[in-house]
Amino acid sequence: MCVPGCMEAVTAGLSRRGFFGRAGATAAGFAATAIAPASVLAQNAPPAAAPAPSAAAPTAVLPTTFTRVIDLSHTLGPKFPTFFDTAGIELEQRADFAKDGYNMYVWKLIEHAGTHIDAPIHFAETGASVDQIRTETLVVPLAVVDVVEKASDEADYLLSRADLDAWEAKHGRLPRGCCVAMHSGFGKLALTDPARFIGRDVDGTLHFPGIAPEAAEWLLKERDVAGLAVDTLSLDNGPSKDFKTHKVWLPAGRWGLENVANLEQAPAAGATLVVGLPKIEEATGAPVRLFALV
Amino acid sequence: MCVPGCMEAVTAGLSRRGFFGRAGATAAGFAATAIAPASVLAQNAPPAAAPAPSAAAPTAVLPTTFTRVIDLSHTLGPKFPTFFDTAGIELEQRADFAKDGYNMYVWKLIEHAGTHIDAPIHFAETGASVDQIRTETLVVPLAVVDVVEKASDEADYLLSRADLDAWEAKHGRLPRGCCVAMHSGFGKLALTDPARFIGRDVDGTLHFPGIAPEAAEWLLKERDVAGLAVDTLSLDNGPSKDFKTHKVWLPAGRWGLENVANLEQAPAAGATLVVGLPKIEEATGAPVRLFALV
Repeated sequence: MCVPGCMEAVTAGLSRRGFFGRAGATAAGFAATAIAPASVLAQNAPPAAAPAPSAAAPTAVLPTTFTRVIDLSHTLGPKFPTFFDTAGIELEQRADFAKDGYNMYVWKLIEHAGTHIDAPIHFAETGASVDQIRTETLVVPLAVVDVVEKASDEADYLLSRADLDAWEAKHGRLPRGCCVAMHSGFGKLALTDPARFIGRDVDGTLHFPGIAPEAAEWLLKERDVAGLAVDTLSLDNGPSKDFKTHKVWLPAGRWGLENVANLEQAPAAGATLVVGLPKIEEATGAPVRLFALV
Repeated sequence: MCVPGCMEAVTAGLSRRGFFGRAGATAAGFAATAIAPASVLAQNAPPAAAPAPSAAAPTAVLPTTFTRVIDLSHTLGPKFPTFFDTAGIELEQRADFAKDGYNMYVWKLIEHAGTHIDAPIHFAETGASVDQIRTETLVVPLAVVDVVEKASDEADYLLSRADLDAWEAKHGRLPRGCCVAMHSGFGKLALTDPARFIGRDVDGTLHFPGIAPEAAEWLLKERDVAGLAVDTLSLDNGPSKDFKTHKVWLPAGRWGLENVANLEQAPAAGATLVVGLPKIEEATGAPVRLFALV
């Protein structure tokens, strides 16, 4: 998602002349790579980034068996809906097979476009960047909460504590280290009806479902959940001005997934989610490939 | 990897003034998203992209059980070794928490940097781009062929048919739909000794191990293999001028993985590889998160 004011900044930033025009804005540094230890949230994160033990992202319980793979990812191209009035990605051709014997592009990518992750650092002064998120929290049980009917009646629907209670009444306690995914039915609109997916009204306010801050707070306090996922543009619903769900969830050392696809194909319980997150140093978000192993 | 001549083009292209300076070079179009059918290599690919049935990338046999996840990915930052005399990625800060209440970057990324995939279209006139690679070929058995000792004696070592025979003598026939990974030991050098990882000599020739074209041809004809992987910069070894392994392998509708990490932690046989490939429309390569499920 993109908070108020960033739409303009991003649009300006993606103009051809403006790109990379700010001196000193390029991120630098170099992080060692290895399997992150299980005892901390983030590898190489500054001390302040580590949440209190009670808020540490839990590790899912394996073993897992699967017989089928479901793709929960949208294809990201220049026309995929974004918060901004510009493309989330542009490819520039660097080599052409006919001329050079091979094909290659360079990407210009807004790291919060398409099916993507929000890392803790996206909404925190310090916290894990995408490369620092523990591997163990990227292969986790998937709990899909169906709010399709409610979201069909109310575009701004907020997944509630009651929705979580209903899921648990049917499927048992949310598994340790899981991802809780909101299935609103809006995922299909990203391709078939982008205008309704974004839901921008005449006043410029967006309309799509999200997760209630109170539900996120309850999950943080009462359950062991690694991440939240939504099939809409943002963890917060469209009209949100304060982005409270982001602010509750990410600084606690948890991740979020936005623009998730094909949730209607995933079971409500029993699947394992694999978050294929490119390990990009210092990134606050990244396009991801999501697989549900069933 | 980067064929001769592209180093200069990429370097020039990544200069601030040069980026996105070529009119009409931006990739356009929009692909629908869904699970790719199992009967074709690539979803939405032009007819010419489909290989002959005998060359179609096979689908791995599930079910799979795992109890542990190994990260086979390097962290990609501006200092990660590349073929080019420039960074593979640069991040430009678009929002800052202290000022804007959140953090966000825009990436400028060479799609063949870091731990990444080569899609069939990278070395073919037509063929699957990364978004068109079948989901079913991204979760596959992993066969790790250890050539560490040989590569230690000979930096330009080429994994041979004999190495594959030796693997099969010990572990049985290569499993259907698998990924064959060369473990040369060079993976560790990417971070500890980048100059030796690249191996550029005084004449500018690179030196690191790769996979012999003959071995790739044999795998294509005699086994059902979805992809090749190497812990070096390229499927072909450093001194290669003709990139024959790329030219044998990719146009046949197979994928390749380069700069794979931590292969010493993976078993020679029995693991399942998950290729976390961001589904970027028209891309010829992409940074990936690789997990070995053991």
